Amino acid sequence: MGINLSNFLASKFQSRKMGQFQDLDHLDGLSISSVSANLYNSNRDDLAMFYFRDGANFASVYTQSKILSENIKWNLNQKTQKIYSLLINTRNANSFTGEQGYRSMQHLADFVSKYLTEKQKEDEDDPKIIKSKNIIFGCTGTIGEKFPEEKIKSKIPDLIKNIKYTQNKYIWIKAASAIMTTDTEPKIAMEECKIGNTLVKIYGIAKGSGMIQPNMATTLGYIFTDADISNDVLKKLLKKNVENTFNAISCDGDTSTNDMISIFSTGKARNSLIKSIADKKIKSFDESLNKVLLNLAKRVVADGEGASKFITINVLNAKTENDAKKIGFSIANSPLVKTAIAGEDPNWGRIIMAIGKSSVEINLSKLSIKFGDLIIVNKGKIYNQYNETEAANYMKSSAINISVDVGNGKKNFTVYTMDFTKEYININADYRS
Amino acid sequence: MGINLSNFLASKFQSRKMGQFQDLDHLDGLSISSVSANLYNSNRDDLAMFYFRDGANFASVYTQSKILSENIKWNLNQKTQKIYSLLINTRNANSFTGEQGYRSMQHLADFVSKYLTEKQKEDEDDPKIIKSKNIIFGCTGTIGEKFPEEKIKSKIPDLIKNIKYTQNKYIWIKAASAIMTTDTEPKIAMEECKIGNTLVKIYGIAKGSGMIQPNMATTLGYIFTDADISNDVLKKLLKKNVENTFNAISCDGDTSTNDMISIFSTGKARNSLIKSIADKKIKSFDESLNKVLLNLAKRVVADGEGASKFITINVLNAKTENDAKKIGFSIANSPLVKTAIAGEDPNWGRIIMAIGKSSVEINLSKLSIKFGDLIIVNKGKIYNQYNETEAANYMKSSAINISVDVGNGKKNFTVYTMDFTKEYININADYRS
Repeated sequence: MGINLSNFLASKFQSRKMGQFQDLDHLDGLSISSVSANLYNSNRDDLAMFYFRDGANFASVYTQSKILSENIKWNLNQKTQKIYSLLINTRNANSFTGEQGYRSMQHLADFVSKYLTEKQKEDEDDPKIIKSKNIIFGCTGTIGEKFPEEKIKSKIPDLIKNIKYTQNKYIWIKAASAIMTTDTEPKIAMEECKIGNTLVKIYGIAKGSGMIQPNMATTLGYIFTDADISNDVLKKLLKKNVENTFNAISCDGDTSTNDMISIFSTGKARNSLIKSIADKKIKSFDESLNKVLLNLAKRVVADGEGASKFITINVLNAKTENDAKKIGFSIANSPLVKTAIAGEDPNWGRIIMAIGKSSVEINLSKLSIKFGDLIIVNKGKIYNQYNETEAANYMKSSAINISVDVGNGKKNFTVYTMDFTKEYININADYRS
Repeated sequence: MGINLSNFLASKFQSRKMGQFQDLDHLDGLSISSVSANLYNSNRDDLAMFYFRDGANFASVYTQSKILSENIKWNLNQKTQKIYSLLINTRNANSFTGEQGYRSMQHLADFVSKYLTEKQKEDEDDPKIIKSKNIIFGCTGTIGEKFPEEKIKSKIPDLIKNIKYTQNKYIWIKAASAIMTTDTEPKIAMEECKIGNTLVKIYGIAKGSGMIQPNMATTLGYIFTDADISNDVLKKLLKKNVENTFNAISCDGDTSTNDMISIFSTGKARNSLIKSIADKKIKSFDESLNKVLLNLAKRVVADGEGASKFITINVLNAKTENDAKKIGFSIANSPLVKTAIAGEDPNWGRIIMAIGKSSVEINLSKLSIKFGDLIIVNKGKIYNQYNETEAANYMKSSAINISVDVGNGKKNFTVYTMDFTKEYININADYRS
């Protein structure tokens, strides 16, 4: 991990110290439990359960990869209105594990639903029968290795026994830690807002780009709210807000077979149910959801493997949002740009190169580029007061802002990424040594 | 430069020692000259002139970038049937230099054509008047710096004075060295073949991916032949053969504003002029041209910054060639794949990931993957005799062959690339230190 990262996390986001995370506490209708199933052959937590005693409305977005892990196939196949449990394991992605991997999902869903139904009978006045289809899964870790069904199964009773009906910050952090792979710290975030006169909570956890053994950068993000919102509206809110948050980050341009962002709503806040995305009462929730997703997405980037700098790329005044996005990602994914920034080099030529290769038509005479507040290129020409020393000085910051004004439209898009350091190569090349 | 590279060049291509390059010698109708214009503030050659005393037919393909360097704009604007000189400078890309950069091309073309017209009067029985439009340029190096017109201009008389009408291998190597940036060795290649009963030569030089100061990986490739071929046929041959050679290589997925591959034919071999691409007499030339381009393209990859391994990715039995290409480049450009290979890790999970994110529809049950001759994945399943130790052993090779059989069509494409080493980051991050 780059030596600057903790400073920059301290200055820009949070201390890496647990005590300074946001104060997530109890969210009505949700219970959390995490244990070690010894998947890493250690006693670190590697299994987390989110249990909704009265079920939750939900929506998910999944990886764009054409190859899907078996848990994502399972999730896509369940046609249900309510989810009762989300079970997440780390260490094994259940990807490229074929029919056997899928059957493990079936077996675990059968097992979990049976146990939770028993728990309902013990705990609830009006016990529900929980079915296999009410259980969904998040998996991350090695691909192509046999899924450790038995190890996980044997810990389900413990996991359910550990369920507490009241949550606090440490339970959230413990769960967020249980889903980590090579992440260096858990990622949690929260907002509160109102729907009508009802105060509601939006809590979230995520894991980022960890790559060890034959696996890759899986992103998992889970949002929980006590608001009452229909599945349809949750889906629309999630899709919309993922666009400029989790879909606006890039660590190395690679995509996992397991990526998954979900939102669950328990309805316990008892606002009047939101059934339409056009309902004006959803506005504040919409904005707060975006904040939580962006907060988590930025933490994923900031904790990217080997990252020493957090890079924000603002593309302004493009003809379409898609053009702005293409330019932003072309810059964010360029190894030449990312290595230059790691080297604290104000190498604006590489920004030009990345803009040029983005396939977007550019009118050079309208193009302007800034590093932070420093104008580098002004309407197609090097700025007459450009000062390389000043620019080099700016590049020493731990947070780098690049803005590219295309000047031929009105659409903007912001992309978040990290630099490429020797540490990135170390982590990804040397796992055997 | 990775320590394995010389071994691997020695075993796969050529010794890095000059003596073992192919024996390019005289090519009738072409003269070569190279000098130092002190562009690097050193006495290394940085200026090369290729002079065609009776003109040459020609064709060029240029960068796909939406931002073009000024020399490429100049070249595109010249409407002429014959080229008399190609002038190449290194150190300054004449990119993002605006009207001033373009005017420098005009000035240099005026100057060179005037001098060469004088030379014609001195040397030729039937002297031609050479015009500015008969001169084209190759530029590589820093972008956004003022083009050093005066420094170059002052050396044109020397350059022309040094022209020798008979070439030998050392003149070729000297010229190929003059166009290098951070390349570690010159790149030359040759083939001979017949058109009808006439023996013809195809000679070529190239430079690869060098990135210092605010510039990027410019690829230049220049092919010279004494065959007599029309401009139209040259264009078709070049476009076709660039597809699976220079367009099949990737060092870091970045693209320069200056990329340029050209072919020049002097006609001095006196074969009967080839006017149609359908002419069967061109078959052997077509194949030989492909060999020369592929030979040069492979040298560019092998000399990629920090490269320690040469990687060949064969994508087989895809539905379309474009599908095969997309999969090949998705693997070749994945930082996770490239770092795994640098780490000698048989990380086939990352190959799966890269196939998945290529956006090509995949039928997993038909997918097979091999590393060299070792079967890794067989029809969607890990091969039952897969042996990780054996695979890890294979990854120690300096030349890595990955083959991906998609199994849903008949189209193939091969991509060539290199690994991502710490040395790559060093070269690209630390240029100021």
